[in-house]
Amino acid sequence: MRTPGTTHPVSADAAGPATLRADVAVIGGGVVGHGIAWEVQRSGRSVVLIDDAPGTGASWAAAGMLAPVSELHYQEEDLLELMLEASSRWPGFAAGVAEASGSDCGYLTTPTLAVGADAADRRALMDLRTVQQANGLAVEPLTVREARQREPLLSPAIACALDIPGDHQVDPRRLVAAVRLALAGAAREKPDLGVDGAVDGYAVPDRAACLVWEDGSVAGVRLVGGGTVLAAETVVANGLQAGTLGGLPDGLELPLRPVHGDILRLAVPRHLQPLVTATVRGLVHGVPVYIVPRADGTVVIGATQREDALSDAVSAGGVYQLLRDAQALVPAVAELELLESTARARPGTPDNAPLLGRVPAVPGAGSTASDTTGPAHVPGLIIATGFFRHGVLLTPAAAAICAELLDGKADPRWAPFRPDRFSRPAGAAQRTHIKETA
Amino acid sequence: MRTPGTTHPVSADAAGPATLRADVAVIGGGVVGHGIAWEVQRSGRSVVLIDDAPGTGASWAAAGMLAPVSELHYQEEDLLELMLEASSRWPGFAAGVAEASGSDCGYLTTPTLAVGADAADRRALMDLRTVQQANGLAVEPLTVREARQREPLLSPAIACALDIPGDHQVDPRRLVAAVRLALAGAAREKPDLGVDGAVDGYAVPDRAACLVWEDGSVAGVRLVGGGTVLAAETVVANGLQAGTLGGLPDGLELPLRPVHGDILRLAVPRHLQPLVTATVRGLVHGVPVYIVPRADGTVVIGATQREDALSDAVSAGGVYQLLRDAQALVPAVAELELLESTARARPGTPDNAPLLGRVPAVPGAGSTASDTTGPAHVPGLIIATGFFRHGVLLTPAAAAICAELLDGKADPRWAPFRPDRFSRPAGAAQRTHIKETA
Repeated sequence: MRTPGTTHPVSADAAGPATLRADVAVIGGGVVGHGIAWEVQRSGRSVVLIDDAPGTGASWAAAGMLAPVSELHYQEEDLLELMLEASSRWPGFAAGVAEASGSDCGYLTTPTLAVGADAADRRALMDLRTVQQANGLAVEPLTVREARQREPLLSPAIACALDIPGDHQVDPRRLVAAVRLALAGAAREKPDLGVDGAVDGYAVPDRAACLVWEDGSVAGVRLVGGGTVLAAETVVANGLQAGTLGGLPDGLELPLRPVHGDILRLAVPRHLQPLVTATVRGLVHGVPVYIVPRADGTVVIGATQREDALSDAVSAGGVYQLLRDAQALVPAVAELELLESTARARPGTPDNAPLLGRVPAVPGAGSTASDTTGPAHVPGLIIATGFFRHGVLLTPAAAAICAELLDGKADPRWAPFRPDRFSRPAGAAQRTHIKETA
Repeated sequence: MRTPGTTHPVSADAAGPATLRADVAVIGGGVVGHGIAWEVQRSGRSVVLIDDAPGTGASWAAAGMLAPVSELHYQEEDLLELMLEASSRWPGFAAGVAEASGSDCGYLTTPTLAVGADAADRRALMDLRTVQQANGLAVEPLTVREARQREPLLSPAIACALDIPGDHQVDPRRLVAAVRLALAGAAREKPDLGVDGAVDGYAVPDRAACLVWEDGSVAGVRLVGGGTVLAAETVVANGLQAGTLGGLPDGLELPLRPVHGDILRLAVPRHLQPLVTATVRGLVHGVPVYIVPRADGTVVIGATQREDALSDAVSAGGVYQLLRDAQALVPAVAELELLESTARARPGTPDNAPLLGRVPAVPGAGSTASDTTGPAHVPGLIIATGFFRHGVLLTPAAAAICAELLDGKADPRWAPFRPDRFSRPAGAAQRTHIKETA
């Protein structure tokens, strides 16, 4: 734990006029940060959401598939449990946002078709189905004829199709916009929830420079623009930027890496509508591609995974690959209008699972139990980042888990995601060595 | 000829406060309209350029290849003469714009390499070379080894390469910006050239509704916004829109059709610069594609030709085709950053040549000689449209030809482009019938 009064010694008493006070400060205005802020506010706490460009990071690119079944990977059962928890929360979460905002966030229970282009793709999808079924997930093979009866524009040359009724979708851009309306509405209507000095009673259009510490607790956030937010609890939900936030607890490692993806948005000409009615998730000669149909007659085609990029540059090769593989599944993709090519970085972690929870007093020590010399966790701090490909799906779960943590509860099911799991306590290497030779 | 006082009877005396007066009105602010306006202004005439979105049509998409040699098509020798005339004018035109504007328009004498992907492409390019050589044009075959010594990132799998030193390039966006600076500068510095009421002394940010007639002459332009420009001469240079301009002379047919093209702009990562040093014009399994390197480290990849489109929508299939074929010639295209996908319509004509010149008093009568009953041409009117794929290249020639026409000169070399060549005089069909049965 950071010693009080060291790197970032800020006293609340010394705060200048640019100091805001809220019950909870959420750093990062992506889908996850918005979901957490809203859940926090719904729990009766005042909240500020700190972001100078909310909704423009990975959330801006995301297709919004809510796909615990299709996204299952081997040996990621802990993550599956979290994804299923999130999936079960989505109907209520979406309805709540819609009611609070008066705005539709594009939540649709459109089913998903998994489609393989060749025999090897078919084998891979059928092997995955074995794992999916072992986990109790519904994945039913269709004949190509059956698939094309449901989706007439599917290529007759596909090798297989599987029906996945449990994977749905939301529109992340509309979701962020709706949550912002809901946050502003509550801050306006309930004076206790509105934060003086914040835009619309909740928004802080700035970036976090570092955490503010006081007496061994995180007491808020120092902003790049010079201001300060003081809060009883701070949630770090700024994706890739979390790793470079100043003032994180000593010893806490947040090993986030950017995994860039290219994604396309296209309009379907009237005579081809609907291009597809289900989300089509393909495997084309081993490469994944998906086509997500929106209610407005557009489709989203994504997404590449590139770890070599340094910026949000759209890869020409990535765009080519997406158009090639999408056409292999649905040839009429060639007739669509390309509206937008976007690339963003997802915050990846070594095990592809989020960094979510409170930070133990001794990060990386392997236990969350308290000892007699201090608190079990760093007071005032919650980490919620590293959502990688799953940020949109996991948002309602992350929001609910954060709200429980604020209430002092910690569900042991989510212990595998403790944010210090890649940290090593000071001297750990030496102790390990002693143990081995003992 | 339109009878005075019929469809659009506007008297200059009745003009309201929104009436501008200039020596010449140019309708249409693409590259061609800008070039004409500048040449007109250089000849000592005041000019207005009418466009509510200057430079955003086909000029915005154009790659800016100045390629009389590569663009030669069979049986288009008249057009070749105009293209060569334009090409010879480019160095002086570019230098003049640069001097007058203090701004570089991206004119580069980068050579061109014609590259064929397979044996059939090689045969097509070699057949074309026979025609090019017969017209005295320099096109020299290189071995693939020689081509790759000049352009190391060319695919080793190409079938042939030909050196075309006479085909160069300009940046159409920078050209339009530079000409606008030059127009504004002259209007500011020489009071005789500035037009009262025009933005920067020359610009009219509106669209033309119809020509204004007076005593059998075109006397200016009525604007969509309600204003009027009165001018001794009006040049119709608004591309596809020319065909639907109100008040064109009776019987004049301007058979313009939209030929849409998709075009990409990409950034070359530093480690791949320069991607190519020459403009690479490929034929890939019969489909043309080009890669134009800019001085700023970007490249332009174009262009499809689609006649089925109704809007400026970018075709997903078009983008796919361009990326596929460009990668066939230069595989490293996959590693570029896609900056922009654009589509625009080029104004095509039945013979792919422009509609350029004055309008005979009896459009389509097959002779430009005067008779005893009236003027040889519609006074006050010049047509300059239908430049199709060649607008940027032909700009200096179109500008010079318009300036000559304003001086009362008409070069017989350009008679094949007379704008009424697709018009038929009233009763022509009947007379033809009589002749056939005589």
